Amino acid sequence: MIAAIFQNNPIFGAIENNISDLLGAIKSKDFDLLVLPELFATGYQFLDKTEALSLADELEHGYTFEAMKQLSHEKNALIIYGFPQRVGNEVFNSALAIAPNEKNHLYQKMHLFDTEKNIFSPGKTGFSVFQYRDAKIGIMICFDWRFPEAARKLALLGGQIICHPSNLVMPHCPDAMITRALENCVYTATANRVGEEYRTGSRLKFIGKSRIIAPNGEVLAELGTEKGFVAVVVDPKLADNKEVTSRNGVFDDRRPEFY
Amino acid sequence: MIAAIFQNNPIFGAIENNISDLLGAIKSKDFDLLVLPELFATGYQFLDKTEALSLADELEHGYTFEAMKQLSHEKNALIIYGFPQRVGNEVFNSALAIAPNEKNHLYQKMHLFDTEKNIFSPGKTGFSVFQYRDAKIGIMICFDWRFPEAARKLALLGGQIICHPSNLVMPHCPDAMITRALENCVYTATANRVGEEYRTGSRLKFIGKSRIIAPNGEVLAELGTEKGFVAVVVDPKLADNKEVTSRNGVFDDRRPEFY
Repeated sequence: MIAAIFQNNPIFGAIENNISDLLGAIKSKDFDLLVLPELFATGYQFLDKTEALSLADELEHGYTFEAMKQLSHEKNALIIYGFPQRVGNEVFNSALAIAPNEKNHLYQKMHLFDTEKNIFSPGKTGFSVFQYRDAKIGIMICFDWRFPEAARKLALLGGQIICHPSNLVMPHCPDAMITRALENCVYTATANRVGEEYRTGSRLKFIGKSRIIAPNGEVLAELGTEKGFVAVVVDPKLADNKEVTSRNGVFDDRRPEFY
Repeated sequence: MIAAIFQNNPIFGAIENNISDLLGAIKSKDFDLLVLPELFATGYQFLDKTEALSLADELEHGYTFEAMKQLSHEKNALIIYGFPQRVGNEVFNSALAIAPNEKNHLYQKMHLFDTEKNIFSPGKTGFSVFQYRDAKIGIMICFDWRFPEAARKLALLGGQIICHPSNLVMPHCPDAMITRALENCVYTATANRVGEEYRTGSRLKFIGKSRIIAPNGEVLAELGTEKGFVAVVVDPKLADNKEVTSRNGVFDDRRPEFY
């Protein structure tokens, strides 16, 4: 299957513009799976929870959802995108996976970063894996990378491709994702953003460097510090082979009774 | 305190020679903690368990132990070294921590690599942390790096400096140790070896690249692909600060009920 990532530079709050920008960029592209950044259509730096609520959508409602649903049909592909999810008076930093004629899958970010804690509620979904065509897909968002338990949990649940919508501002994640791939023998697909936001008194510069990494740690595709799209053929079954050597497996060799 | 690593190129089976080589190289060096490679005095590639037993020592016995004990007294320092440990008819791939007038601490490798499984018994010690002067020390050996649970366990037990005797032949560990440091906010000190061994029909080339890494992921000291020694001042208390931002801690933000 063809896995793709799109790295954008959204204008804060300009949802229709940001989605139009995406649709233009991928118009001629072909893929089976597309991972988009965290909060890709709204931008990141909400002034407060009230503003986030005003830009948030209820699950499976709103302009972004309808556009992504249509996109998934047009491309006959699985789309995974980050969005602010309104649940009553709470907002979650969520990601939704949409594919034609499939049940949608929701993930709410479990490890919130910095001032996100003033805006979002901690995720309640936990980590889960779902089947899409020949692939078992897991989702984590941005700062979840820092916690080895997140990718580990998804891999132990059978996840073959860990899709990772992100808005990274610190430098370490792109290389750390090689470790996440290696320690679990899974594909990872990090879709980050670029550009700057300066809304709350602290300037945020997003680092780009989105990457798709193979179960053997090889960086199969990557973007730089500009907007961009990249796609690569992946074989999810390769992630079922947990062998490091003929005598070692990253799961079989675990000794959980000592952890 | 001054933490040091020594990267050697032992001659297989030439224990006295290999120890003499170490002692010569560090004669004028000053340190409080010295980490030596896995199986540093014997070499790595045992033909079979019988050969390993013939070169193994019982705990706190043998030429290597006596030499390391004397070294720890001469340098007034903690020495952590890898050795084949004989227990009855079993051999463990072990590391011992020796300091003057302190209880010694043993670690037996919990995740054996490749043909080590034909030679060594899987470790029974589990992971533990001990106090040395102002530092809390944890030990893991080589391939343990691939399992995030090893460093995580040592960090959750309070370990500030993870000492990591190694005989690395694959390329990924030196960079992955940055992830291990970052995800746990701990120091790591990997002491690897260099050179080649060609005893069992498969040529092993050891990669060197020993490193001391800070809790913020910075590589404080590193060696290349030759023999060498490097030391750096570390402050173990820095590893007690688990903050990523003022609102994030790598331990406080964990959500173990979802892992």
